[in-house]
Amino acid sequence: MDAQTSFLDKLFDRGILHSSGVDGLYARSGAFEDVIRRFEDYVLKIGEGETSEAMVFPPGMTMADFETSGYMKNFPQLAGTVHAFCGDNHGHMDLLECMATGKDWTEGQKRTDLALTPAACYPLYPILARRGPLPEGGVTVALQSYCFRHEPSKDPARMQMFRQREYVRVGNADEAIEFRETWKRRGKEIMDALHLPAHVDVANDPFFGRAGKMLGASQREQELKFEMLVAITSSENPTACMSFNYHMDNFGKAWGIARADGEPAHTACVGFGLERITLALFRHHGLEIENWPEAVRATLWG
Amino acid sequence: MDAQTSFLDKLFDRGILHSSGVDGLYARSGAFEDVIRRFEDYVLKIGEGETSEAMVFPPGMTMADFETSGYMKNFPQLAGTVHAFCGDNHGHMDLLECMATGKDWTEGQKRTDLALTPAACYPLYPILARRGPLPEGGVTVALQSYCFRHEPSKDPARMQMFRQREYVRVGNADEAIEFRETWKRRGKEIMDALHLPAHVDVANDPFFGRAGKMLGASQREQELKFEMLVAITSSENPTACMSFNYHMDNFGKAWGIARADGEPAHTACVGFGLERITLALFRHHGLEIENWPEAVRATLWG
Repeated sequence: MDAQTSFLDKLFDRGILHSSGVDGLYARSGAFEDVIRRFEDYVLKIGEGETSEAMVFPPGMTMADFETSGYMKNFPQLAGTVHAFCGDNHGHMDLLECMATGKDWTEGQKRTDLALTPAACYPLYPILARRGPLPEGGVTVALQSYCFRHEPSKDPARMQMFRQREYVRVGNADEAIEFRETWKRRGKEIMDALHLPAHVDVANDPFFGRAGKMLGASQREQELKFEMLVAITSSENPTACMSFNYHMDNFGKAWGIARADGEPAHTACVGFGLERITLALFRHHGLEIENWPEAVRATLWG
Repeated sequence: MDAQTSFLDKLFDRGILHSSGVDGLYARSGAFEDVIRRFEDYVLKIGEGETSEAMVFPPGMTMADFETSGYMKNFPQLAGTVHAFCGDNHGHMDLLECMATGKDWTEGQKRTDLALTPAACYPLYPILARRGPLPEGGVTVALQSYCFRHEPSKDPARMQMFRQREYVRVGNADEAIEFRETWKRRGKEIMDALHLPAHVDVANDPFFGRAGKMLGASQREQELKFEMLVAITSSENPTACMSFNYHMDNFGKAWGIARADGEPAHTACVGFGLERITLALFRHHGLEIENWPEAVRATLWG
């Protein structure tokens, strides 16, 4: 805890991040953003020739697709839904009165058609499903999105709103698994190029509740998800800066994405936690970008 | 309406935007994003020497600062608040049952400490206030944020989630007004360089309800806010692609930003609607970027 708060305070002091007053919600400085942009460009170059198309998503997704994803069942504590005022003039008067007297005016807010996106690749699947069967050989999409996780924390590497850059592979089982293995290897090469000490391990997602314990155990047993771990604020609990996921045909079935042969698509993705990787760079190479190792600077700005 | 739907359909057909199934929520293609990035670089270059610092905000702000902004009083219909599940194991069972039987499970969602940001400059003011009195001559900040407005529409230029790039001037009244006038002039030069037919007019914000009519009239009368209008889907109702705002000392007082002499700061901002400007370029120069006028391409990619 102390190491987390102390790193966060240093980031605030140097103006690399700015406090909002709420844990996990920070303004990014120009320097922080420049690192993110350079890292994205670097990763985009690595997958350049293999990608069918690129997309960027807004920070929200449709409530219907959010429900289809199953996220609310497994991680309800982390999800966020968007609510709005839907009243008339009379309701507006009540709202103003509520605010003036310090009552909780948010109880009048109604659900909208939107949820905040919990994982960057979710909005892709319904778009692919609507196009009809995949071309032979499937597709590989480069994408980026803000994501939301409701887990206020003093750990700067655990933000409530952060960006994930991803490559997503949609095809058959072999294609999806090969993609994941390729990126596990490349992920390590990227960390080496950035001089960040990192290792891959099976992921341990925080599935909710008693039933969730079994889901987590099953995910680990099947080795569906791996993470690239880097010590940022703790060496005992390193932070997942990349993840390498094989979803089997879960999303293919959930959204109805068919392969050319009519079978449900298998999907895999590699996700890069942009804020986390940037924080790892500041943690390991210092708060002055000018003083980062020459080779790291060449990788990002070269 | 027909012109709006038809332009939106063309953007979908050409894969420039992708439908999510909800009006006003779209995935952006790589080509669309490239235009946004080039436009941002272009605008950043114009204000380069005058800016004290740069920031990028996540798509949400703290509920406390959202309340301070006054947005919920004036535009409750457009605002979005973030809600989350805060139950225990028992609550989780109820949630799962609700979802399984198709009941509205969102009624159990509780408010969090976050609202979606309605205007890109709001998160800046509390950060400045916490620093204490401004330096002599004030500050100028370059910033960017996703913004949310709950107004589903078939008009592609009226998105629910979109990005604003802004310059914000914080100082005394003269400094704020001069800044706004400078950017009104530069805004027109930018539109000329992009070969976009545009004109400046006093803004007409959709203040809510009966009382709101008077607020709108007063805003127009005081000429506090101007907009750069471009015909995108209608020549009778052109779209505001930039705005030039003088807030007097409203935000300085609301958040307690003091000038070097102790008086409340006056603020002004210029906002660039990144999606709207990009859509205006596609509307006026065609859906193939390669065919845009040479001078426009040189301005953005040169």
